[in-house]
Amino acid sequence: MESISIGLLGLGTVGSGVVQIIEKHQDKLMHQVGCPVVVKKVLVKNLDKERAVKVDRNMLTANPDDILNDNDIDVVIEVMGGIEDTRDHLKKALNNGKHVVTANKDLMAVYGPELLSAASQNGCDLFYEASVAGGIPILRGLVDGLASDRITKMMGIVNGTTNFILTKMSKQGSAYEEVLKEAQDLGYAESDPTADVEGLDAARKMAILSTLGFSMNIDLDDVKVKGITEITEEDLQYGKQLGYTMKLIGIAHREGEKVEVSVQPTLLAESHPLASVQDEYNAVYVYGEAVGETMFYGPGAGSLPTATAVVSDLVGVMKNMRLGVNGKSAVTPQYEKKLKDADEIYAKYFLRLHVKDEVGTFANITSIFSDHHVSFEKILQLPLKEKGLAEIVLVTHQASLQDYEDILVNLRDLPAVQNIKSSYRVEGSARV
Amino acid sequence: MESISIGLLGLGTVGSGVVQIIEKHQDKLMHQVGCPVVVKKVLVKNLDKERAVKVDRNMLTANPDDILNDNDIDVVIEVMGGIEDTRDHLKKALNNGKHVVTANKDLMAVYGPELLSAASQNGCDLFYEASVAGGIPILRGLVDGLASDRITKMMGIVNGTTNFILTKMSKQGSAYEEVLKEAQDLGYAESDPTADVEGLDAARKMAILSTLGFSMNIDLDDVKVKGITEITEEDLQYGKQLGYTMKLIGIAHREGEKVEVSVQPTLLAESHPLASVQDEYNAVYVYGEAVGETMFYGPGAGSLPTATAVVSDLVGVMKNMRLGVNGKSAVTPQYEKKLKDADEIYAKYFLRLHVKDEVGTFANITSIFSDHHVSFEKILQLPLKEKGLAEIVLVTHQASLQDYEDILVNLRDLPAVQNIKSSYRVEGSARV
Repeated sequence: MESISIGLLGLGTVGSGVVQIIEKHQDKLMHQVGCPVVVKKVLVKNLDKERAVKVDRNMLTANPDDILNDNDIDVVIEVMGGIEDTRDHLKKALNNGKHVVTANKDLMAVYGPELLSAASQNGCDLFYEASVAGGIPILRGLVDGLASDRITKMMGIVNGTTNFILTKMSKQGSAYEEVLKEAQDLGYAESDPTADVEGLDAARKMAILSTLGFSMNIDLDDVKVKGITEITEEDLQYGKQLGYTMKLIGIAHREGEKVEVSVQPTLLAESHPLASVQDEYNAVYVYGEAVGETMFYGPGAGSLPTATAVVSDLVGVMKNMRLGVNGKSAVTPQYEKKLKDADEIYAKYFLRLHVKDEVGTFANITSIFSDHHVSFEKILQLPLKEKGLAEIVLVTHQASLQDYEDILVNLRDLPAVQNIKSSYRVEGSARV
Repeated sequence: MESISIGLLGLGTVGSGVVQIIEKHQDKLMHQVGCPVVVKKVLVKNLDKERAVKVDRNMLTANPDDILNDNDIDVVIEVMGGIEDTRDHLKKALNNGKHVVTANKDLMAVYGPELLSAASQNGCDLFYEASVAGGIPILRGLVDGLASDRITKMMGIVNGTTNFILTKMSKQGSAYEEVLKEAQDLGYAESDPTADVEGLDAARKMAILSTLGFSMNIDLDDVKVKGITEITEEDLQYGKQLGYTMKLIGIAHREGEKVEVSVQPTLLAESHPLASVQDEYNAVYVYGEAVGETMFYGPGAGSLPTATAVVSDLVGVMKNMRLGVNGKSAVTPQYEKKLKDADEIYAKYFLRLHVKDEVGTFANITSIFSDHHVSFEKILQLPLKEKGLAEIVLVTHQASLQDYEDILVNLRDLPAVQNIKSSYRVEGSARV
């Protein structure tokens, strides 16, 4: 090959990072793939906008077909975002025999299997390492490193914004709203933070991770999601007191042939490797039957880390081109999807209640748990300032989600229970 | 291919694990490589010894040539250990066109470049993921994940025995000798623990890691080594008080074209991602210019984790066989080796002294530091039980190793300094 030509869809911060890295590491790329790597054309919305990176005006185009129909372009790198149009572009690129590298988790969480299948049919590579946890090579870790193992559990801190917010809340003892504003001012949270704080972003990444790790087509709709907007300082304080750290955790758990995939605020035992992941950092904890516990840690976002992951994928594509083996590395899901029912999902739970401080209240409450065969690991009861009320904080032993939800319904019906203040999943010791 | 035949050198705990995993995951391996995978022959010393795994007596041999000269054997897996004889076996295997997977860090640290070159000349793969940090896919992480970045720093907790000992010393407040005995009783330390506790095992792994990460032939002799045998409870206590955790850390640091590779007990800021790596676990922290901080965490040893890494390498070899691209993935070192001199290695240091409690002592000591333009981050002075003596504990700002060693010489010459009790490198904040 004389050179490898790239078409870039999008020139925001990640796109600019990709251009910069390809320029800066040209020698290293040459050393690895044996020929120059050239960005030939770049799709942008506005041809005249000022850019963070110097790009020849003639390389810019507002028409995607200038890239998708250009026979000289070998690889399309997609960093424009969006779902429906972007899917059309990438299908066209693949049908025209171009390899694709994408950083687009929204797209891959929805159309991943369809696009991978199009890639495979056209003998093209479709790599998407940057779509999950930006700078962490977790997808390669799953595919290559654990190729001979059976992954039974993945737990991820896969959203930097929420981890930043929870770390700050925990360290400063500040309220959610206050820290969110701080995060927005610092650029760690967007002005509309919904996708992050409601857990949707994390859910997309867990759909991608579990599809790959369990070799099963997990859709976004299969992921149960709860965000962090209702977490209070009191919850964090009680958590600390009991030896837990609050994190937004994506959990993908396989037992036998059935899986559970969910995202929710979780009280994590402080001894767990994920508990020390702070600020905007991400980490994915993987449990394999043979290897045991492993964890991959790094920046989850940021233009340079994400761009690095994109260029790493590009190197993978180019090595395959040199070897003539493109389109063969996609791993097709091997198993039929089987989701656990609520009575098959087991976890420990933290529950905080306000109750009337009357004779028999405590007995009534605990008997609801024992009726469902759920016992306690920890119980605190404290008087409240408000007269005649008490606060009860408890952590259960393992309970099925079905039983736990039934217990919540029964508790709400109990006249002595004034308010269920909060309820979180608890993930236990580091040893799974 | 009808099937892929394996010759196994060694049937200890790792070898038994490999046999078990290949049996247990036969379906999965079939799915990935498209044909059965069969262990054909196994080299053992004693044909009649009782084994942890059931292996047909006819498969065992005490003669390596039964494997190395067998034309049907495609891949040789080496888990027998040892250096000189093993090197001869593997060179023979490679010269006979067999691919090689090895878990042998001792061998790779000494003969790695020679064996990789033999592999390349014969169009064979030589994979050695299991040789560094058993269950952690760190070598793939370095080669693939960070292919487009420039790695400037690697820090590793790459020896499980010493991390187990230091964790226990720190948690229990016990003495080194006591915890070593406990570790030996539990099987975490060998009866002759020298290679572990003196840092040699970690040095071998750092030689392998830095050769790959810096693309430079780093020999074992290039790695400066200090072990953990002289660490006292007092040092751990003072460390804690100042916000540090004691770890045996391998450091590989590149600035410009020059590198430093060393292994030594290090006081690590508690906020550093490596500081929370406990017990027998390993982790490698990698800093890349573009990606920033990443960390790979997992079990560093153990028969199943190591066997898993071996079988992952085997899958890599077999995929390459299917694609017909063996022998092309070895990355030859790109740069000439340039080691930093002592006046180019900068770090912070912790120093604990016993001094005579006399007028002017403190001034004399601090002026030695200022003569070498080294200033302090933290200073503690405390009276000692022994009359007329005081203990001084200090942490310097960044100083060159040359300056620091000169300071130690000057301090020893000072009549008021009774004893230099301990001295450790300090690694600062998580942000490098």
